[in-house]
Amino acid sequence: MNINEIQSILELINHKKPIVHHITNYVTANDCANTVLAFGGSPIMADALQEVEEIVSITSALVLNLGTINELKVQSFIKAGKKANALNIPVILDPVGVGVSSFRKQTAKRIMDEIQLTVLKGNMSEIKSIYGITSLSRGVDSAESTIDGGFEIAKALANKLNCIVAITGAIDVISDGESVYGIHNGHALLSRVTGTGCMTSSLVGVCLGTGDTSINSVITGIMTMGIAGEIAYSLLNQNEGLGSYKVYLMDAITYMSLGDYQERGKIYEIKT
Amino acid sequence: MNINEIQSILELINHKKPIVHHITNYVTANDCANTVLAFGGSPIMADALQEVEEIVSITSALVLNLGTINELKVQSFIKAGKKANALNIPVILDPVGVGVSSFRKQTAKRIMDEIQLTVLKGNMSEIKSIYGITSLSRGVDSAESTIDGGFEIAKALANKLNCIVAITGAIDVISDGESVYGIHNGHALLSRVTGTGCMTSSLVGVCLGTGDTSINSVITGIMTMGIAGEIAYSLLNQNEGLGSYKVYLMDAITYMSLGDYQERGKIYEIKT
Amino acid sequence: MNINEIQSILELINHKKPIVHHITNYVTANDCANTVLAFGGSPIMADALQEVEEIVSITSALVLNLGTINELKVQSFIKAGKKANALNIPVILDPVGVGVSSFRKQTAKRIMDEIQLTVLKGNMSEIKSIYGITSLSRGVDSAESTIDGGFEIAKALANKLNCIVAITGAIDVISDGESVYGIHNGHALLSRVTGTGCMTSSLVGVCLGTGDTSINSVITGIMTMGIAGEIAYSLLNQNEGLGSYKVYLMDAITYMSLGDYQERGKIYEIKT
Repeated sequence: MNINEIQSILELINHKKPIVHHITNYVTANDCANTVLAFGGSPIMADALQEVEEIVSITSALVLNLGTINELKVQSFIKAGKKANALNIPVILDPVGVGVSSFRKQTAKRIMDEIQLTVLKGNMSEIKSIYGITSLSRGVDSAESTIDGGFEIAKALANKLNCIVAITGAIDVISDGESVYGIHNGHALLSRVTGTGCMTSSLVGVCLGTGDTSINSVITGIMTMGIAGEIAYSLLNQNEGLGSYKVYLMDAITYMSLGDYQERGKIYEIKT
Repeated sequence: MNINEIQSILELINHKKPIVHHITNYVTANDCANTVLAFGGSPIMADALQEVEEIVSITSALVLNLGTINELKVQSFIKAGKKANALNIPVILDPVGVGVSSFRKQTAKRIMDEIQLTVLKGNMSEIKSIYGITSLSRGVDSAESTIDGGFEIAKALANKLNCIVAITGAIDVISDGESVYGIHNGHALLSRVTGTGCMTSSLVGVCLGTGDTSINSVITGIMTMGIAGEIAYSLLNQNEGLGSYKVYLMDAITYMSLGDYQERGKIYEIKT
Repeated sequence: MNINEIQSILELINHKKPIVHHITNYVTANDCANTVLAFGGSPIMADALQEVEEIVSITSALVLNLGTINELKVQSFIKAGKKANALNIPVILDPVGVGVSSFRKQTAKRIMDEIQLTVLKGNMSEIKSIYGITSLSRGVDSAESTIDGGFEIAKALANKLNCIVAITGAIDVISDGESVYGIHNGHALLSRVTGTGCMTSSLVGVCLGTGDTSINSVITGIMTMGIAGEIAYSLLNQNEGLGSYKVYLMDAITYMSLGDYQERGKIYEIKT
């Protein structure tokens, strides 16, 4: 992947302003909507069974997020996901905290059984849980590094699910089942603001919503959060904490330029 | 409308601290509550069928917002709205994204059939949808200008619904069915922060909650967001993006003074 | 209580990073999650009946918050609370706006009847409502001072419920049924940001999640918000309003040091 591919995706975003439909949790919905707007897309949040099909039909990408799920939302995930599949609209699954309950595991399983995902994106603990490897989940935060087996898991799971798999962490790992890439961007403070994982899925949604559903699009979305996390940290003054960091993160997404990707982007193909 | 009328409304807010009950979406509820507090009111967010009537009874204004609706909320809209009508408490309908689904259209219709609104406030795409004019909705953002037919639609709809109609956009249009006003305040960045439309309805709720339910009150609420948007922009430093803009917006609402309305307010009566 | 006890709790937080499970409202859930992260804990927000027991089992404290309740959440309160009791996990009840509806009063009563609370925390109007004293509630904000009878009510209620009772206000009052303490920290602006009460319960949740469920832990949590409110005010520049104040509040929680408690903490035992 090179800078021209990122440029092309950014231009498509600017041109198409992709509409991204989220069926998501009430904890981070506001931040996800603002992230989409800051990155140049247009968000819709809606989860009522009565309207998700119609709304999917006018959107460019669908994000399913397992935070604060309930019985009704699960039905809406399936209904919206099937419609998206029928219309060839990309679907991103963010299995937030999937390891913390059987209900989330069953919901993730049902989604993967009934819907063809375009992208599965989670932290190491979540992806391991999806992979069926026993993994202690610490809340919904990522406590584990992506080093131990991450490359192999991403590739194997991508093949198993026939989709792109992204594992976020200190090093983000992305695989389409053939190639595996590692992104060495980001900052430790990102894990101390709630919803940065959800927001990353929203960024990926905007990228896929351009029509480019290749691994380049997923990389661009995930790298955007990593670089924004670095820029936000660089803007932090002494005595400024997580409140300011979150504000700067949104500022950084607003003004991210091709130059930022060029100067800061650290992506490596991993030979597995 | 003149500055003395705005002054009178601001003084009433300061004196009465109106309680504004919101039945609203989970995406922007936090921003709406903070907007009400910043503007000098007191917010209550509650949507359970079991409690909305009781809560309406102790509030000064009711805001019904169609974002992230579900079957239960629709019932609460009706129950709360009827109670508000019975108690002569003003009701504001914000038909968020009404064009995106039949469910929202039916819900808006049901509300308008069963409840006497005091104010209907939406962007051009939403108001056109309400008016029955086919209008492509871009997510829940306003993509259309208010120029093409806005004045006529506002006036006609105000007469049809026997309420005040406000169309927000680059130029905000407000009509009570007789007069039509245009507000030339605001900033383009307002449309890039989620919930500024919802927050505008909250501001209108605070104004109506004073007991003044005239068009002056609606104008004051809508102009407040426009001017706050301008002030927020003026506070923006280089490299600051939408994160900072949102913070400054809340700052501006906190300290809005009569002088700001006097210096910046741009309202014109439109002879139709 | 002395500074060594606070130090011990802060060290335990740093060491254990307590997971705090919230069944809470959609208005302030994001701020509560970020508060827990800023203070060194790990938040989980989840309310589905299908998963709350499992989630409680892996957490260190449970916060039940009555904002935006509905029938389903009430069932989850009971289920999660009973599980927490069985596992000896501390339970904090924040009876947000309990005075505004019979539904909230009945829900609070049911929780208190069926679950052994560790801490009950509310403003004066809420605690009075719980106590059965008629008290006019102004929205969900605290309009009443904690002076008139607060000490007596806290102590009596603590004995009645066999838990620690905290009344937040200009002076926070905390009692375990024997001792009564008053905290003279905080700033008036705290009451003009929505959710600072909810966030205080989250801070108490983090403290209790260390395993120290004494009154010292409750005092530390509540004092943290008070001092953060003072620091945030001291950071406020001219023309900065409630948007900036909220950002600084989160910044202050991020970097609160033992020295801040030592320099600013104002706690007095009250001889009743």
